[in-house]
Amino acid sequence: MTIELSGVIPPLTTPLTVDGGVDAESLERLCGFLLEAGVDGLFVCGSSGEVALLSDAQRNRVVEVAAGVAAGQVPVLAGVVDMGTARVVDRARDAAKAGAAAVVSTPPFYVKPHPDEVVRHFRLLKDAVDVPVIAYDIPSATHSPLPLRALEEIARDGTVVAFKDSSGDVDGFRSVLTATADTQLRVFTGSETVTDLALQLGAHGAVPGLANVDPDGYVRLARSAAAGDWAAASAEQDRLRRLFAIVDVADRGRIGFTAGALGAFKAAQYLRGVIESPRCAEPLLPLADTEIASIRALLEEAGLPVAR
Amino acid sequence: MTIELSGVIPPLTTPLTVDGGVDAESLERLCGFLLEAGVDGLFVCGSSGEVALLSDAQRNRVVEVAAGVAAGQVPVLAGVVDMGTARVVDRARDAAKAGAAAVVSTPPFYVKPHPDEVVRHFRLLKDAVDVPVIAYDIPSATHSPLPLRALEEIARDGTVVAFKDSSGDVDGFRSVLTATADTQLRVFTGSETVTDLALQLGAHGAVPGLANVDPDGYVRLARSAAAGDWAAASAEQDRLRRLFAIVDVADRGRIGFTAGALGAFKAAQYLRGVIESPRCAEPLLPLADTEIASIRALLEEAGLPVAR
Amino acid sequence: MTIELSGVIPPLTTPLTVDGGVDAESLERLCGFLLEAGVDGLFVCGSSGEVALLSDAQRNRVVEVAAGVAAGQVPVLAGVVDMGTARVVDRARDAAKAGAAAVVSTPPFYVKPHPDEVVRHFRLLKDAVDVPVIAYDIPSATHSPLPLRALEEIARDGTVVAFKDSSGDVDGFRSVLTATADTQLRVFTGSETVTDLALQLGAHGAVPGLANVDPDGYVRLARSAAAGDWAAASAEQDRLRRLFAIVDVADRGRIGFTAGALGAFKAAQYLRGVIESPRCAEPLLPLADTEIASIRALLEEAGLPVAR
Amino acid sequence: MTIELSGVIPPLTTPLTVDGGVDAESLERLCGFLLEAGVDGLFVCGSSGEVALLSDAQRNRVVEVAAGVAAGQVPVLAGVVDMGTARVVDRARDAAKAGAAAVVSTPPFYVKPHPDEVVRHFRLLKDAVDVPVIAYDIPSATHSPLPLRALEEIARDGTVVAFKDSSGDVDGFRSVLTATADTQLRVFTGSETVTDLALQLGAHGAVPGLANVDPDGYVRLARSAAAGDWAAASAEQDRLRRLFAIVDVADRGRIGFTAGALGAFKAAQYLRGVIESPRCAEPLLPLADTEIASIRALLEEAGLPVAR
Repeated sequence: MTIELSGVIPPLTTPLTVDGGVDAESLERLCGFLLEAGVDGLFVCGSSGEVALLSDAQRNRVVEVAAGVAAGQVPVLAGVVDMGTARVVDRARDAAKAGAAAVVSTPPFYVKPHPDEVVRHFRLLKDAVDVPVIAYDIPSATHSPLPLRALEEIARDGTVVAFKDSSGDVDGFRSVLTATADTQLRVFTGSETVTDLALQLGAHGAVPGLANVDPDGYVRLARSAAAGDWAAASAEQDRLRRLFAIVDVADRGRIGFTAGALGAFKAAQYLRGVIESPRCAEPLLPLADTEIASIRALLEEAGLPVAR
Repeated sequence: MTIELSGVIPPLTTPLTVDGGVDAESLERLCGFLLEAGVDGLFVCGSSGEVALLSDAQRNRVVEVAAGVAAGQVPVLAGVVDMGTARVVDRARDAAKAGAAAVVSTPPFYVKPHPDEVVRHFRLLKDAVDVPVIAYDIPSATHSPLPLRALEEIARDGTVVAFKDSSGDVDGFRSVLTATADTQLRVFTGSETVTDLALQLGAHGAVPGLANVDPDGYVRLARSAAAGDWAAASAEQDRLRRLFAIVDVADRGRIGFTAGALGAFKAAQYLRGVIESPRCAEPLLPLADTEIASIRALLEEAGLPVAR
Repeated sequence: MTIELSGVIPPLTTPLTVDGGVDAESLERLCGFLLEAGVDGLFVCGSSGEVALLSDAQRNRVVEVAAGVAAGQVPVLAGVVDMGTARVVDRARDAAKAGAAAVVSTPPFYVKPHPDEVVRHFRLLKDAVDVPVIAYDIPSATHSPLPLRALEEIARDGTVVAFKDSSGDVDGFRSVLTATADTQLRVFTGSETVTDLALQLGAHGAVPGLANVDPDGYVRLARSAAAGDWAAASAEQDRLRRLFAIVDVADRGRIGFTAGALGAFKAAQYLRGVIESPRCAEPLLPLADTEIASIRALLEEAGLPVAR
Repeated sequence: MTIELSGVIPPLTTPLTVDGGVDAESLERLCGFLLEAGVDGLFVCGSSGEVALLSDAQRNRVVEVAAGVAAGQVPVLAGVVDMGTARVVDRARDAAKAGAAAVVSTPPFYVKPHPDEVVRHFRLLKDAVDVPVIAYDIPSATHSPLPLRALEEIARDGTVVAFKDSSGDVDGFRSVLTATADTQLRVFTGSETVTDLALQLGAHGAVPGLANVDPDGYVRLARSAAAGDWAAASAEQDRLRRLFAIVDVADRGRIGFTAGALGAFKAAQYLRGVIESPRCAEPLLPLADTEIASIRALLEEAGLPVAR
């Protein structure tokens, strides 16, 4: 029940068929596309995977397919995002059964937990499942931040083996690294845009949504970082920052923020020929053709081959 | 597939046994306690029912038990709180099967939907289930407010039959009443503390969490309001406002906000002899004995009989 | 050093000449327009008066002009909005010298004060000036709410004689009324849209920005309330709510929220022939002609005579 | 009217006498203490200088004293923090007259400006004064962020010569550097805790409040950065991060956040023998003796000599 995570672990989008089901074939192709780029793990059913919008059955199917492709080459982490402990435990048991090597949980949300209640949540989850548990901080989605003192406590006693930080707070991330330096916790940034800084600060790896679109870029960045070549890492990061502009092309007067950002990842994957349809899960609305054209232009500016 | 809701519809707490399971016997007693007070409906699996912390199986059990006790005397509404459309549809089908007369859904959350995506969510939900749909706005929990123009649209075309407002925004509530006055929408306030004002503004009823503790008070308040006796309604409201102080007795340095507030409702029900245990669902921590003693004192000040 | 405030006290806009100076002639006309409608006081240099954007010299001039017109018939209250105690004391001494009957201060802002520091601020201010002090809560502008326990303390010991609530929180307003019922504090709502409810709850009066445009409406509303005719008050309120839509006509893609709202008040006063120019203080941008046309239409719908 | 800023420019605290006046002697000693450490400029009347709490007369006195000590060796920048353009212009003219080499302004606050109104503010300010203008983004205080597109516009046309970022947003800071790379804008971080990263990203310098306490540390950090020795910069940063814990020693149940943080800087300067009294401006409450003892311990842990 241990796992040593590091490197680039993309949080996969969930390819859907035009009628809204999990598109297993596209998902297999996506897993292959990422593995070929040299990623170190696959994180399915994360926020980039529209976990909030997938049914339990869809989530389980996604884990199965990814675990099938990964076949033990790299670990498949599964997001078990839900509001409370009992619900997360149910999701986590399903995910483990479907082949997940580890499960990824946020603190309870919708409710407003105390740090000690957050600690309790993770301990109960750990005791309930046979796979390692990873803590996930994404307050922009949960509005329930993972307090540093709770994280430190569950890192220190081995309740969680890793941590994904999607808070956007570099200063706080540095505090996590310092506070857990003498523990076994593996610390990952969820940032697309300051990944190089996170690695320089000592992060064990990165889980950037944009790696769905340009996994080679993030693998190069991580390798430069591992080699201590910060200038090269920074240059790669700058290229990826320009590419990340795809998440802002959508007109937010017409579709929501999530539809615009995740739709952009999917549109880019569609344009690159990796998945069959750029559609997002209900009730998200699709990007307009002009917006997809802007994404195509940004892919080309970033030097990425476009298949469609 | 229609339902004409009005009056006091308490959002029931979910009584749990000491080992964390649904305490069906206590729940039956609670339903009876509320019906005896003259409430006009039962809303289970709402925020006061710790919906975020109950498993699907627990939610279904709660609906079954309440529907069994209500036995058609009053409608049982079931919260189907989840993050996205597919998930909410699954919850809603379960709830309908378990006997719910209507289902209550928030807008999608965790994601950031556009108003048109919120509309789409409710339309897809309505099309997927055989019971009426009620819209629920509780941004303090979801951080995804229900925009007025989305609500107006789904009220006008009959997608939703009712609306529960737990935003705390009296001005916005008044705008809802004005904007939907010429539709069939039944509008409910979720407020414990300005229920009288909401009724005076024309609300069809109230869904106050504190009615778990003092249903007679809210029934009296609503009857005074229906009779146009605003002075009596206001006096009753003032008494209930003092009682509502129970939600603030907990030390928030030790337990979370939700544990403090919902724990107070349950402690009061326990003290009144309605339920067997004041415990909340995992991972919420319990109130301290001194805090329960403060709740007892507030019950007594409010003139409520205490059984324990 | 006492003052018994009640009724409708409009927070005056500050008319400016086309080159940005205080337009004393328009301000005199505005004061006259309001007094003729039967208002019970004049509040200059409030948020509606663009206090944040006026120089000290301009503020002092505004107080002088208003005090000159009021000539003791009604009290002139002066906003002394600034960030810290020393600065507010300087503003307050100027205002008193210029003829203000009382000064209106928010808690310190820009900094983050403790409730006890807020209490200390008001006590130091009271000790430093010869006119009564009024507390002003407008967290949307200051982001520094006036805590209830601080307000209760400074009401109880007579540090402040009145309170203006522009928090938008009806429930909190009710708590203020309850907590200070046994003190001499005069409690005013700053709401344009639930003024009737505030008066019904026991407020001593109202300070609604929209009274700049339709003082007669608010005077009628207050008189209906004083007579206990809540149906008439509510009907008047509903008319004023429709008129209040003027603050939303501006395109917020082009000008800011403050420019849109205060610009609408001034445009309406300009259209009604009360002031000579609708311009706001620097750096706010002006409304477009089409937006002013929309305001004209709303004035006409509200039954208000338009002079231009 | 130009100025080429770079390096470490501490935002000085404002030493006060026990009766609350500006303590010119302590301020001179503080300027000397900082200059001796090798700082590249002095920024007075910033947020760390309690600018919000100083009267205009106090602000002018502070600028005079600092300009006197600096005597042209290094530039003295003066914060001209106020809510609107007319007010900021008045402050800026005073500051220039008192000897400031440049003035530092936030966007308008209290009001809610549009980006184009922010641009207009800075252009009007620039036209009104004879010294260069620096833009200051500190949304935690102003709640009025400086939009990137506004900053880019006023950098490009030379309206502002420099920018201080106290947003805490490293990602946004990087975007500023990229967007203004081809302009003359000098970009400074206001961060105490990720100063090394900011310099590595290409910042021209730093304005860290903690440099009030340990200027030598920040000068060493900046020199390591200038030499490309990121390991040394990072090690120095880690030491300074531990020292920065002084801002959290105060009990926030008793005094406010600002009193706790700025009081800690002053207590540390007092303990180091630089200033005569640790008191803050009214209405801030003082640190407790036990809290000052904790600060002493942290100073000693950081290897700083303590004089008292």
